[in-house]
Amino acid sequence: MRLITTQGAPNPQRLDIFLHEKSIELTRTHINLMEREHDDESFRAKSPFGRVPVLLLDDETPIGEVEAMARYFEEVVPEPNLFGLSPRDKALVSMWAGLTEFELMTPIAHAFRHGHPRMGVLEEQVADYALVAAKKASYGLGVFANHMQHRDYVCLDHFTFADINAVVALRMTKLAKIDLNQWPVLQKWLEKMCKRPSIAALDQ
Amino acid sequence: MRLITTQGAPNPQRLDIFLHEKSIELTRTHINLMEREHDDESFRAKSPFGRVPVLLLDDETPIGEVEAMARYFEEVVPEPNLFGLSPRDKALVSMWAGLTEFELMTPIAHAFRHGHPRMGVLEEQVADYALVAAKKASYGLGVFANHMQHRDYVCLDHFTFADINAVVALRMTKLAKIDLNQWPVLQKWLEKMCKRPSIAALDQ
Repeated sequence: MRLITTQGAPNPQRLDIFLHEKSIELTRTHINLMEREHDDESFRAKSPFGRVPVLLLDDETPIGEVEAMARYFEEVVPEPNLFGLSPRDKALVSMWAGLTEFELMTPIAHAFRHGHPRMGVLEEQVADYALVAAKKASYGLGVFANHMQHRDYVCLDHFTFADINAVVALRMTKLAKIDLNQWPVLQKWLEKMCKRPSIAALDQ
Repeated sequence: MRLITTQGAPNPQRLDIFLHEKSIELTRTHINLMEREHDDESFRAKSPFGRVPVLLLDDETPIGEVEAMARYFEEVVPEPNLFGLSPRDKALVSMWAGLTEFELMTPIAHAFRHGHPRMGVLEEQVADYALVAAKKASYGLGVFANHMQHRDYVCLDHFTFADINAVVALRMTKLAKIDLNQWPVLQKWLEKMCKRPSIAALDQ
């Protein structure tokens, strides 16, 4: 089994946190997105849309999408549990994985990718849309701040995949020029989360 | 257990196909998005971001996000299987559920929501972004058409949740003013899929 990934991008970071929590180490190959190495024919044969990271199973089946890889590892390495155990708890984790993705990660990423000059390599930028996406992200962050009052984790009573999504989304606000200090509850929660070894490791 | 949903929107349709495949019937309440009933305080208490549909479990826990509900029902009503059985097959379904969502459904929905005059009620529209999203959608549809050559299903050898996402995304192209006939393989596949009772039921 081996992983094709890239350094610093949000999706690879989500997977890195997950693998660290599970104490799974993988052989890695890195590609450079800014050089558009994800357009290479040999990579596209494994990832038709050019998305990174990609996990190659032992039979060489390529598995793309971080959540798919995470769910795969949850099956083969069940401890610690990161997707819930009962159908109800699993549904809550899946729900919050989706909400953090669609209401936080997506608009924050769009604000960054459409607004940051460096991202013109990866995105056909629309400046006005960057502003609308940032507004949408801020709205979502407000709703999420309200949800996170008096909570240690996004859902359940332990760290799950939903927390991973939320942490990576909140870390991305800086790139999208959204000031997280507008929501002290989120700023404080992120600081606390950043002390977790799996998350601290991202910056080492 | 009961469902709060709305008629005609893509996410409710994804869930309706899934429930039909599983022969699950639920008590339903409908809300009207164009009247912005998803902003009502009582609904927001169940769905903080105002997203529809929402499933209320017997203990009144609200579960949002179609994929979360679908995964819940897969646990409690395992037949027919719609998310794969082995870790590898489950990973393939999860991967293609994500790819169809991010590479097809999202840009097609954005082209529609930012481009269609009627959608101004739900979205702060950016006309230029509607065009960029349509271009991105067309690119994704091209890649997906290539993947679907010589295939009956998006992945595995049977109908799964990934097919549901793909069908709903392809049906949405009309609203986004993207002509699906540009990809005859997709047009043909959609026509075949629309004969499935679970999908035919959407238009009845």
